[in-house]
Amino acid sequence: MTLRKPAIVVNFKTYMESSGKEALALAKLCEQVAKETGASVVVAPPMPDLALVASSVDIPVYAQHADEVRPGNTTGHVAMENIRASGASGTLLNHSERRIKVAEIHDLIGLARSLHLATIVCTNNPGVSVACAAMGPDAVAVEPPELIGGDISVTTANPGIVSDTVRAIRSVRPEVAVLCGAGVKNGRDVAKAVELGADGVLLASGVVKAKDKRAVLMDLVSGLGR
Amino acid sequence: MTLRKPAIVVNFKTYMESSGKEALALAKLCEQVAKETGASVVVAPPMPDLALVASSVDIPVYAQHADEVRPGNTTGHVAMENIRASGASGTLLNHSERRIKVAEIHDLIGLARSLHLATIVCTNNPGVSVACAAMGPDAVAVEPPELIGGDISVTTANPGIVSDTVRAIRSVRPEVAVLCGAGVKNGRDVAKAVELGADGVLLASGVVKAKDKRAVLMDLVSGLGR
Amino acid sequence: MTLRKPAIVVNFKTYMESSGKEALALAKLCEQVAKETGASVVVAPPMPDLALVASSVDIPVYAQHADEVRPGNTTGHVAMENIRASGASGTLLNHSERRIKVAEIHDLIGLARSLHLATIVCTNNPGVSVACAAMGPDAVAVEPPELIGGDISVTTANPGIVSDTVRAIRSVRPEVAVLCGAGVKNGRDVAKAVELGADGVLLASGVVKAKDKRAVLMDLVSGLGR
Amino acid sequence: MTLRKPAIVVNFKTYMESSGKEALALAKLCEQVAKETGASVVVAPPMPDLALVASSVDIPVYAQHADEVRPGNTTGHVAMENIRASGASGTLLNHSERRIKVAEIHDLIGLARSLHLATIVCTNNPGVSVACAAMGPDAVAVEPPELIGGDISVTTANPGIVSDTVRAIRSVRPEVAVLCGAGVKNGRDVAKAVELGADGVLLASGVVKAKDKRAVLMDLVSGLGR
Repeated sequence: MTLRKPAIVVNFKTYMESSGKEALALAKLCEQVAKETGASVVVAPPMPDLALVASSVDIPVYAQHADEVRPGNTTGHVAMENIRASGASGTLLNHSERRIKVAEIHDLIGLARSLHLATIVCTNNPGVSVACAAMGPDAVAVEPPELIGGDISVTTANPGIVSDTVRAIRSVRPEVAVLCGAGVKNGRDVAKAVELGADGVLLASGVVKAKDKRAVLMDLVSGLGR
Repeated sequence: MTLRKPAIVVNFKTYMESSGKEALALAKLCEQVAKETGASVVVAPPMPDLALVASSVDIPVYAQHADEVRPGNTTGHVAMENIRASGASGTLLNHSERRIKVAEIHDLIGLARSLHLATIVCTNNPGVSVACAAMGPDAVAVEPPELIGGDISVTTANPGIVSDTVRAIRSVRPEVAVLCGAGVKNGRDVAKAVELGADGVLLASGVVKAKDKRAVLMDLVSGLGR
Repeated sequence: MTLRKPAIVVNFKTYMESSGKEALALAKLCEQVAKETGASVVVAPPMPDLALVASSVDIPVYAQHADEVRPGNTTGHVAMENIRASGASGTLLNHSERRIKVAEIHDLIGLARSLHLATIVCTNNPGVSVACAAMGPDAVAVEPPELIGGDISVTTANPGIVSDTVRAIRSVRPEVAVLCGAGVKNGRDVAKAVELGADGVLLASGVVKAKDKRAVLMDLVSGLGR
Repeated sequence: MTLRKPAIVVNFKTYMESSGKEALALAKLCEQVAKETGASVVVAPPMPDLALVASSVDIPVYAQHADEVRPGNTTGHVAMENIRASGASGTLLNHSERRIKVAEIHDLIGLARSLHLATIVCTNNPGVSVACAAMGPDAVAVEPPELIGGDISVTTANPGIVSDTVRAIRSVRPEVAVLCGAGVKNGRDVAKAVELGADGVLLASGVVKAKDKRAVLMDLVSGLGR
């Protein structure tokens, strides 16, 4: 299963507003918006909610992280195979809040592909983005850590990081999708991301902390310009 | 919610035989045996299956691990609050396959208590058991790592480690339950654990890898001597 | 080799003011003050400087950390045996800036003892202190992390944490020395620590960042009230 | 300071045979062989011995690892600046026994360059090698982990991994040197590495565990074909 582009990827992080019952409610809202608009919306709920969400909605559900372990004697970890068994269809890797080792990224991308799971590798700048794209994930999501969770979108604060990443990856691995994130809040930010060449956005608090989550989702999707 | 003693705690680890749909099936089997016999049976499924299992059975469901993070900007981690939101009622901590830092154990025990979640801290010998019991979890589960996943029960291979741990903990923190584990396979092993003073057992492959899981569970429960 | 009490333990951390040539100079200054006053002064230089400092001064030199690895195929780590081979006579363990797992603390204390190396286990509160003391190190050094590197000494900001730790450890493991740290800057702070029952102090920036390091060291030593 | 090619890089790991006094003796032997033959020989002693070795020999001395921390409140870690202050002239990064995160590799390469320190990034296959070369270290050292410490040289067991890595890196970053390692024991292995296009070798036990270390070093250097 590959990532359908362009895409809005909603990372639920571990917020209480998107955990447990709220994770399920938000996933269903995303599904509703995706169905109404035809947009590609992906949700990444907290790990304990993964199977419950995946068995309840009909849009792609991704894990937020995978450990490089084999199924079995690895208590307290999450193997890629457990993510598969939960019904999820992909995973984020190397999020700035959960960085992993370079050999792990390489092996997990290969393992995910063999299990028909998609991978989005998060990065922090064009240099790391190209390094990660070279290992062949479905997508790279570039997010300057200092802008994550903030009020100003990366597309406004640092558009060059987006366009540089797009250009650098296109020149070596054109098949790898490029997302951007950090501070993305509305349809204008999404439209700007697309204009800069990105295949979509990765965002969290902009949706999770919104009062009217449905309105925000509809606005974000409108920015995809479909 | 505290651990009802004596108890059989079934750690599903990350085995494929107890992941996804199989996690749900095994949890339901444990629930059935608990209801039929009145025994205290606790299940600890893989993290992605936690909410799904917790919302489907009426016996205590524990996580296998908790990260020392706050809910929010901690993508790819699992906060104690996420475990609570998933509907689980407790967690293992410091399993030999997922050791954590001593200050983390201390803080997570306190945090779990404030959330009405039970904690079972896994240890590897009497010295570490007493250190962990001093921090006041609901239970300590002593498991010599070299016997985990093996064919010989700790109660046969090293009964002294069980009785020493029981004695040492009883003398300083009598309210902390003592479980033992590693190689536990059948009712005889459970009976021996109880005879050595333990309040139950923690086991995994003995159940997860069994051909007739129901028969094994019934046998284990019989060892509690109720 | 055991820690001679009461003691001033100077943690050089990784400051440039106490790294490389400066590590050597500061260690020699500490040696001079120790010899002039007869006080027990221990230095813990940055890891790359350990053998050079240990071969150059005649006061106890401790590592700041040890990894739980065996000598051999463990590139980039530091085994307790490497610390021994460097000529050092002890090590800090579990500093708040380098926390380790509880089973590691247990095993490293035993390994250090077998190699005649002293261990000072750093902790953050009385509960963790008792847990660590139960594993039998030479000393426990309690340091509230929020006061480390600050301007107010733990002995002023939170004297109860020192006296509670002293009392709790004395009642279970009276042979374990108790140090305190965080914000300790001068002889008055040291005198207060001793008055609260501590066997000395662990400090860093108070010495490392001082303009007149010799004067500060002389003042600190005076607080030991010898 | 850059790596002079072709080079023999001797990783002392944490072996007792190359720790403390033995680290110094082995480094002096390497220096002697380098001077006699004019070959480029680099030594990477255990971390506690770094400053002592760097102040005692006149060949390049590298650390085996660097932590991504700033100098200061980072007890028990080793900042790149501490490596610089110790007198070393470079560092290995991401050795298979001490893997680090991809963003750390990126940042540490840049930091090392600003401090005039050389970096050799260890990798495990051509894919990871290209990813790491893209971040611009002085060298990449490809070592299949399963061959490390073994009796068969990578150049015999898996020559394709060497030539593939050389070809892949030359096509994208020709200025990055390519070393190979794992099982390298003698001059024939070195000659084969050079024949496969490598700029030298990284080895450990072949030298450290040798009875006649001088003879082995002379043989290795002869393989450089100078």
